[in-house]
Amino acid sequence: METFFNPLSVAIVGATEKPGSLPGIILKNLLGKGFQGKIYPVNPKYGMVFGLKCFPSILDIPDEVALTVIAIPASLVLDVVKQQAQKRIHHAIIISAGFREMGAEGIEMEEQIRQVAIGNDIKILGPNCLGVLDNYTNFTTSFLSWERVSNPKKGSLSILSQSGAFAVALLDLATLEGLGIARMVNYGNRIDVGESTLLPFLSDDIHTKVIAIYMESVDHGRKFIEAAKACSKKKPIVALKVGKGAAGIAAAKSHTGAIAGNYEIYKAAFLKSGIIEANGLEEFIDGVKALSMQNPPKGNRILIVTNGGGFGVIVADHCSENGLEVPLPSPRLKEKLKSKFSAFYVVNNPVDLTGSACDRDYYTALQTCMIESDEYDAAIIIPLMAPQGMTERVVDLVTDIMNRSGKPAVICTVGGAFTTKVKQLFEEREFPVYPSPERGVKAMSMLLKRRVLQEGAGHSDIKYRD
Amino acid sequence: METFFNPLSVAIVGATEKPGSLPGIILKNLLGKGFQGKIYPVNPKYGMVFGLKCFPSILDIPDEVALTVIAIPASLVLDVVKQQAQKRIHHAIIISAGFREMGAEGIEMEEQIRQVAIGNDIKILGPNCLGVLDNYTNFTTSFLSWERVSNPKKGSLSILSQSGAFAVALLDLATLEGLGIARMVNYGNRIDVGESTLLPFLSDDIHTKVIAIYMESVDHGRKFIEAAKACSKKKPIVALKVGKGAAGIAAAKSHTGAIAGNYEIYKAAFLKSGIIEANGLEEFIDGVKALSMQNPPKGNRILIVTNGGGFGVIVADHCSENGLEVPLPSPRLKEKLKSKFSAFYVVNNPVDLTGSACDRDYYTALQTCMIESDEYDAAIIIPLMAPQGMTERVVDLVTDIMNRSGKPAVICTVGGAFTTKVKQLFEEREFPVYPSPERGVKAMSMLLKRRVLQEGAGHSDIKYRD
Repeated sequence: METFFNPLSVAIVGATEKPGSLPGIILKNLLGKGFQGKIYPVNPKYGMVFGLKCFPSILDIPDEVALTVIAIPASLVLDVVKQQAQKRIHHAIIISAGFREMGAEGIEMEEQIRQVAIGNDIKILGPNCLGVLDNYTNFTTSFLSWERVSNPKKGSLSILSQSGAFAVALLDLATLEGLGIARMVNYGNRIDVGESTLLPFLSDDIHTKVIAIYMESVDHGRKFIEAAKACSKKKPIVALKVGKGAAGIAAAKSHTGAIAGNYEIYKAAFLKSGIIEANGLEEFIDGVKALSMQNPPKGNRILIVTNGGGFGVIVADHCSENGLEVPLPSPRLKEKLKSKFSAFYVVNNPVDLTGSACDRDYYTALQTCMIESDEYDAAIIIPLMAPQGMTERVVDLVTDIMNRSGKPAVICTVGGAFTTKVKQLFEEREFPVYPSPERGVKAMSMLLKRRVLQEGAGHSDIKYRD
Repeated sequence: METFFNPLSVAIVGATEKPGSLPGIILKNLLGKGFQGKIYPVNPKYGMVFGLKCFPSILDIPDEVALTVIAIPASLVLDVVKQQAQKRIHHAIIISAGFREMGAEGIEMEEQIRQVAIGNDIKILGPNCLGVLDNYTNFTTSFLSWERVSNPKKGSLSILSQSGAFAVALLDLATLEGLGIARMVNYGNRIDVGESTLLPFLSDDIHTKVIAIYMESVDHGRKFIEAAKACSKKKPIVALKVGKGAAGIAAAKSHTGAIAGNYEIYKAAFLKSGIIEANGLEEFIDGVKALSMQNPPKGNRILIVTNGGGFGVIVADHCSENGLEVPLPSPRLKEKLKSKFSAFYVVNNPVDLTGSACDRDYYTALQTCMIESDEYDAAIIIPLMAPQGMTERVVDLVTDIMNRSGKPAVICTVGGAFTTKVKQLFEEREFPVYPSPERGVKAMSMLLKRRVLQEGAGHSDIKYRD
């Protein structure tokens, strides 16, 4: 697999300087990103492309080539794969569209390519895909202009996606949420390399901490479950399965030719292999963010602290909906809290610091409940920044206590420019911030789900309803 | 009710220039907003406050006073209400906290105030509230600094909220979403004026087009249903009910002393009175936005158009989850679409314009399906802006067709800075944009719900599952 992410040498078939042309943008992106391997443009029309010597065909390249990137009309792809068989190039990324998603003729073309690949030990990524983006080797086959799509920073999230548009959206969202990317792979029609071969690779990848998978269908059912099971023991995997109902299944078939199959079977497979399932794009990115920044809680006793009573109520409601427990403080803990706060603060769960709260009150509440007491496993904190007593200091105060407690926390907050600033400060310190109570609760429930899956069904004393 | 929003004269009890003091900020906000009525600061300690003559008590004000705004310690409020009875001031907004939410003693104080009010025909808003923000009369009793909280533009959304923090969050969110506000009322402990008296007022208010209600409990069950029923015939009402499960009900009791009651009863009441219920803060603001910008569809046949196949699939899934129908185009319509597009465009539902889409393709697809054909009632449009062929022109193209079709549309799109720009352009033209497929679908389902509630159960040929 390494060759797909870090080829010693790569041939870009179809290379051109024509503006707007796919292989042209791929080459430009690759040069711009600072990839260190050798690059061979291939196109019979040109002698030079972007200052590099261009070859009429891959057979004319005098050196060894590790990987071809093929971005030419579908009908011409088979010949190139045959040439690369002749030249013993064992890896190909086929960017070109116009195969299975077009119907019978396209399926036939895919099948012919697959036969050549099998017969000559060629691993293929694609067709109908964006290919690879690697932030550590700087290798990319993306044909999207970075003026339009975020070029995300280096980080620990890796993305596997059947859909190109979705992979791109995830890159944009990751950037918006301050998450860095390790590797992204979009395999489109997936005639060969898919989840089952990529998961073991990411499982051993030192740069990948969390894996996000968008899937319409899966490449090999049993092999996938085994690969996911092994991988999820080491790293959290979050999956977004689409093509669930009749309308979605039909849409998936038109999209990547995927047979989305029975959703209930997928659900069972996810559970069995320790995959955390997300329902919808926001839950997907929210869960990935929580798992990237915080550790799973040791149990299911959630403390809610807020200075906005209404927000406390709605968080409590959504905790109930999502199987999170919101136990009241013991009489002893209640007395202790009472002794530290004004009489009109509400020392329950939620702890309501009211509109009179100042940032220091968060420190006091969390110190008392999360460090001095053992009654809670995790905190959902809702600091509203409107009152004058709430300053940016709340970030360091909360960070200090929570880090010392060794327990995870997620933050929810809503507001204007000042709130956005506080959000950024929290996220720089690896505390995920969500713009609504329900999303914060859902993210916490996904952290807890990770713990439950890690411990294995029946081997946990965590009460968790799904 | 008018007096609460547009008093000819108002006494600010507790007025001071002390920084950070509640009545001081109220007075400053009121002066800053350009309110045209007469303002009388009241405080025995000062002769002048912010350049205005200050009176020792309201009894010392030589003129008639229409409304008092009381922001002094709870224990002193009763005396002021007695004085205003003597001076025949028939309206009071009690900002002060420290009543019902504090337990038995607080309840007793509220009851004494209520008796004086009933005996002297005084209408009371509060206590424990932010009071009023009116963008047309420029009257406000908010004690929040506009440096921290958005000061939203004039518009057609009115907000009723039991929670102050929630009211503030809604002002911030409305500003973020480009929604203008007509009037906001936060009544906190609500010993007198509440939803049942405010709804008829907003129902007749020419500035209010959509009403958003945050409620933990309701003031008068039967009266509320009647008021909501009458109002929702004219204007959409969206409600967020919190305090549903055991944890939330307990939290609501601590928060505003509200008895949140049996959630099932609320659900039935909402249905009966034509209120659209939202689950969670995002659904609340998303639904309000859709209803503010677009009309309800005439039926439940949704067309999905996208240039990101994966997004089409996930929208189709969420349509199924939310009871929206995604019918395939008729053979005739399909042929018509095929004749207009490249062979590899997918002419189904979703219509998938693929990564090769240009903005003009949206015009063609919508013209063919929404104007030339009668097979669809509304559109969910997912323009992804990454491909080079997608420019800002897509906004005018979509706007033109959809406005001519007379059918509603919501937009979903995900991306970086360029996408944000396109979002703003769409929303300036009153097309609501959502940052995820699932939120766009939910918003469309709330538009449809409005139609179903308008037509009345059993009197509609709209198939809609809830």
